[in-house]
Amino acid sequence: MAGVPFIGMGVSGGEEGARHGPAIMGGGPKAAWDRVAPIMQAIAARYEGEPCATWMGPGGAGHFVKTVHNGIEYADMQMISEVYGIMRDGLAMPAAAIGTVFDGWNKGPLRSYLIEISGAVANAVDPETGKPMLDIILDAAGQKGTGRWTAIEAQHLAAPVPVIEAAVAARNVSSRLHARVLGQGTYKAAPQAMPAGAVSVADLEGALIAGKILCYAQGFDMLNAASRTFGWGVPLPEVARVWRAGCIIRSDMLNDMATALTDDPARNLMLAPVFVAHLKTHHTALRKVVASAVLAGHAVPALSAGLAWFDMMRTARGTANMIQAQRDFFGAHGFERTDGRPGKHGPWGAH
Amino acid sequence: MAGVPFIGMGVSGGEEGARHGPAIMGGGPKAAWDRVAPIMQAIAARYEGEPCATWMGPGGAGHFVKTVHNGIEYADMQMISEVYGIMRDGLAMPAAAIGTVFDGWNKGPLRSYLIEISGAVANAVDPETGKPMLDIILDAAGQKGTGRWTAIEAQHLAAPVPVIEAAVAARNVSSRLHARVLGQGTYKAAPQAMPAGAVSVADLEGALIAGKILCYAQGFDMLNAASRTFGWGVPLPEVARVWRAGCIIRSDMLNDMATALTDDPARNLMLAPVFVAHLKTHHTALRKVVASAVLAGHAVPALSAGLAWFDMMRTARGTANMIQAQRDFFGAHGFERTDGRPGKHGPWGAH
Repeated sequence: MAGVPFIGMGVSGGEEGARHGPAIMGGGPKAAWDRVAPIMQAIAARYEGEPCATWMGPGGAGHFVKTVHNGIEYADMQMISEVYGIMRDGLAMPAAAIGTVFDGWNKGPLRSYLIEISGAVANAVDPETGKPMLDIILDAAGQKGTGRWTAIEAQHLAAPVPVIEAAVAARNVSSRLHARVLGQGTYKAAPQAMPAGAVSVADLEGALIAGKILCYAQGFDMLNAASRTFGWGVPLPEVARVWRAGCIIRSDMLNDMATALTDDPARNLMLAPVFVAHLKTHHTALRKVVASAVLAGHAVPALSAGLAWFDMMRTARGTANMIQAQRDFFGAHGFERTDGRPGKHGPWGAH
Repeated sequence: MAGVPFIGMGVSGGEEGARHGPAIMGGGPKAAWDRVAPIMQAIAARYEGEPCATWMGPGGAGHFVKTVHNGIEYADMQMISEVYGIMRDGLAMPAAAIGTVFDGWNKGPLRSYLIEISGAVANAVDPETGKPMLDIILDAAGQKGTGRWTAIEAQHLAAPVPVIEAAVAARNVSSRLHARVLGQGTYKAAPQAMPAGAVSVADLEGALIAGKILCYAQGFDMLNAASRTFGWGVPLPEVARVWRAGCIIRSDMLNDMATALTDDPARNLMLAPVFVAHLKTHHTALRKVVASAVLAGHAVPALSAGLAWFDMMRTARGTANMIQAQRDFFGAHGFERTDGRPGKHGPWGAH
């Protein structure tokens, strides 16, 4: 696509993309998009007949949407790897049993390409040793930078994406194998087996459903902020529609997201009725999984970041009054009052 | 200091800085620093007689060190606000009782300026209403950008600072008051009272000690990465020494950090003996606090991010093998094997 620099295009990567056709996120001048649209729609993946290719807005909108797609992909993968770790180390399940669980989840609300391939890789056997392939693969993940870009752009927009940030951090930490070996040598206890009944496979499914919704709510919120900031008018329901096929994060849930965003593109997904219902059902599972993981020494950075964001976003009276008080104390930054009175500073005088 | 652009200088802010003298982090040409050093050391704060002013390296080293100082400051403040929230909403303690707790902690391992002023603001009474001042302050925190800068630079360096990222995100979420009110209306339950005995004030102190060490370990690790990447030769023990007085994050613990970094500047602080001892004692309290908070609906983004990082950093066999398998499956990214054999791809063929 080197000759069409104004198109931001999401391709699933390698053979996989070539077989299904990519999801295409166009950007740049609308007139330019209109000229190439017939070609793009012809080569794009399709979801129930609809081509997954559309114009996302002027300027860098197409590339930006594709970048956030990748940030979400990091987060999706990290959350899957966290529940995988709990099954492996907390519930002592062999790889094939874990594969069966993923295969089962792929028939329910989590149905998606990433869950499908998680089942496939967990079921695969290493031809060289006959052992489960997953057990032979080194736990050090690389990144090509799009997760990082997403995190950086979110910082500029003040649109928090903590699940994505946690996923990028986890990849960076994973690559520090030597430090982790030293850490384990020093602190001894690796992740422990969980007490019987602490978490069930159904709890892990619920936690992943909740975590996924919260991560996408953050991602779409960030796209909304970018669209407003740059004046792009990104059609958020179309973003969800285009992501339903051809790309790595394609999933059934994106169809519900497209519907929810059509109803109200500016509304945070955690407030859309279909996801409110999911979260009301599954936030308890997410809490149970995070609490059990934390007590047994399993790292769940992305799941816990999603839960913390959820709890902040559903708490009308948070704890930042302490931060505002500190800032006023040491730097006379001032604060607003809950009672609407004008007073701007605390009674601590000059320090 | 506008006339001395090569000096990156940390000032505590407002009256507070003026009274004690600032911590000064010099950068730029060494010869230029040497000319102004006598003045800087004369006006700087002192810790046991030693002036808190030194040269941090060429180029932007001084400004960079000051920026990371501020990122750590965000994280310190956020973790304090999280344990404050648990005392207020989880243990139903009035502001004055919380103030007494902070005053007590300021006599122990947490002794620091931020704990001292947390006690002062919790004890303060609003002259207009006679109510606790803290209860009148709106829970919407601003930022001037240095927390964000730290997070962005850490991304560029691939040196994860998840506690700082969580703190910046928490400030951003705090400012979305309208969304949080909607969230509480939708999901009803705000943070709940904790079951009797779930966490004690001593647990909260232990959690804060552990969280603080983990946050500083990340911050110094980031400075180490920057120093190597930019060839600055930042004297890490000196950074800890300069931060011991005059700046917002000054604390007793920084003295131990200076000693630990003198022993081995390249070593992650979570592996330094004095902090290993602290973490072995207190990581259980941190787990207990995070688990209890998560179950009762309290947001603890920074404490949980610190714990997740600790658990990743002390786990020799993590879960990123799942991520590497997925990446190889969908994009033929390849992986290394745990048994040292050369095989680079899984047996999944072309998809």
